[in-house]
Amino acid sequence: MSKKRKVLSKETVGELMTLDFITLHESFTVKQALDHVKKHAKEMKNIHYLYVSQHDHTLTGTLSLRELLGADENLMIKQIMTHDIHRLLIDLDQEEAAKVFRDTDLVSIPVVDIKGKLIGVVHVEDILDVMQEEATEDFQKMAPVSLLEDGLKNASMFTLYRKRIGWLVVLVFMNVFSGAGIAHFEDVIESNIALVFFLPLLVDSGGNAGSQSATLMIRAMAIGDIKVKDWLKMFTKEISVAIALGITMALAVATVGMFRGGVEIAVVVALTMVLIVIVGSLIGMSLPFIFKKLELDPATASAPLITSIADITGVLIYFSIAAWFLSL
Amino acid sequence: MSKKRKVLSKETVGELMTLDFITLHESFTVKQALDHVKKHAKEMKNIHYLYVSQHDHTLTGTLSLRELLGADENLMIKQIMTHDIHRLLIDLDQEEAAKVFRDTDLVSIPVVDIKGKLIGVVHVEDILDVMQEEATEDFQKMAPVSLLEDGLKNASMFTLYRKRIGWLVVLVFMNVFSGAGIAHFEDVIESNIALVFFLPLLVDSGGNAGSQSATLMIRAMAIGDIKVKDWLKMFTKEISVAIALGITMALAVATVGMFRGGVEIAVVVALTMVLIVIVGSLIGMSLPFIFKKLELDPATASAPLITSIADITGVLIYFSIAAWFLSL
Repeated sequence: MSKKRKVLSKETVGELMTLDFITLHESFTVKQALDHVKKHAKEMKNIHYLYVSQHDHTLTGTLSLRELLGADENLMIKQIMTHDIHRLLIDLDQEEAAKVFRDTDLVSIPVVDIKGKLIGVVHVEDILDVMQEEATEDFQKMAPVSLLEDGLKNASMFTLYRKRIGWLVVLVFMNVFSGAGIAHFEDVIESNIALVFFLPLLVDSGGNAGSQSATLMIRAMAIGDIKVKDWLKMFTKEISVAIALGITMALAVATVGMFRGGVEIAVVVALTMVLIVIVGSLIGMSLPFIFKKLELDPATASAPLITSIADITGVLIYFSIAAWFLSL
Repeated sequence: MSKKRKVLSKETVGELMTLDFITLHESFTVKQALDHVKKHAKEMKNIHYLYVSQHDHTLTGTLSLRELLGADENLMIKQIMTHDIHRLLIDLDQEEAAKVFRDTDLVSIPVVDIKGKLIGVVHVEDILDVMQEEATEDFQKMAPVSLLEDGLKNASMFTLYRKRIGWLVVLVFMNVFSGAGIAHFEDVIESNIALVFFLPLLVDSGGNAGSQSATLMIRAMAIGDIKVKDWLKMFTKEISVAIALGITMALAVATVGMFRGGVEIAVVVALTMVLIVIVGSLIGMSLPFIFKKLELDPATASAPLITSIADITGVLIYFSIAAWFLSL
């Protein structure tokens, strides 16, 4: 069953749980409980924990088979069960449930309704599938392609075309703005054609730095390492890192600039590089937070999207600096 | 313990397994086995399965606690155990072990040495951490950054600088080749400055299509959906998909071309788009396979790397076509 689960982001624990579990009453003795388990164990698979409830089915504790077997036969279940237990609410998102499993190292967690009544059990084996699918979804968003539900190998040519073309066309039209930026500076370019030499190098660097930030941020948000409230802390750190990265890359590109265009060009490309890397990094770092705020998946901040945005700002920064500096 | 595991790609099952398990002898009766479990269960956590071995410790079967409890007390373990069992070799890569867990839906799998002797048990809870770390590693490679072992939130400014600068500088120097390509066609550009308008749009489209292919391929290879031997099948499918994508995008860009530069420019950019998308897609699709063949991680084929390679080929394709067509 778990293999056939559809990849949808709003799936709940209720769709993942099994109804195969054994319940014990608090007042059972260990002996009674063992007999109860023996009677029911044959019909069921995957029984590692037993769930203890009151008359009204309210879940009050759990007990592993191992603990039951190791206990004195005359004790009451209430005396040996674990009272402080983890529960999942039936409408919890499966992705959140996966986090609980990762944090607790449990193999199964009971599912309760809003009143605390036991209604099912989620097993960790099914969480493996959830985790794999969540990560695959994030990779696809970062590709970026629309959700491919049945794997790449068996996807038809038409499916692949349909899932890929949307983002590609959106990006083409975004890149028209870069073109418009270039057109705006046609005079500057015509009188200093050497500037074109550095265009891909400079605009790509902004996109690359931005892609790094975005990808790190998307993953950290997906595994819960970073939350929306961490934005300011991350932004401040990103500024310092980006300045250091920009200066290093500016030195690299200035040496190339000296050879290809002389001192003036070297200064222009170095200045541009610092600014482009800072702006690109901050865009890449912020976009996942913005998407999260807008209740979109942060993973939508894909490298190609960041690259396109960085291209537009890069073109403007580059030729503005060039126009200003070369007219001095 | 599992939380502190280092992120290294060559970790083996041996480093993940626990030595806490209960072994039964084949000739035990169910009654003897129950007594044995009762005696040892208290000292151990996480006992859901029992392992059956011969005198020389060769693993011959398994039994769940549930099955033991449900069985007739006079039967022999040999008669009720599962003979056909999954085992992990002690030096198996943890990532491979994760695949076995996903495919079998087991909560624990015994670990054996080369002679088939039982030496440990791996629990699925620890596999959750392995899966999360493997996916995080792939995200970082695709960023691309060097491996960040302790999470993004607490990484120092200096650590982030150090992990990011390497790839950024490599990409700067790769992009110098795009610049060199542009320099080679300086005459064509000078006499048709409108060509520059379409430069970011065209070269980015190749990179975008290539990033899609590479990202889908990397993930499919990571989860075992696609293997190296599938290369030819994927390559053939990619060609058809890329032609369809290229033609659609060419139509989009040709309309922009008509407005910005007339019929000639429209034809040049449309032709270029088709070729660039095909070449970009094939590079993106093939690079993960090539890395795998070279025993590098396929995830090294990051979007920024694909973009840089696609830029170089894109510049050459674009201006070659322009030079040829505009001189006709």
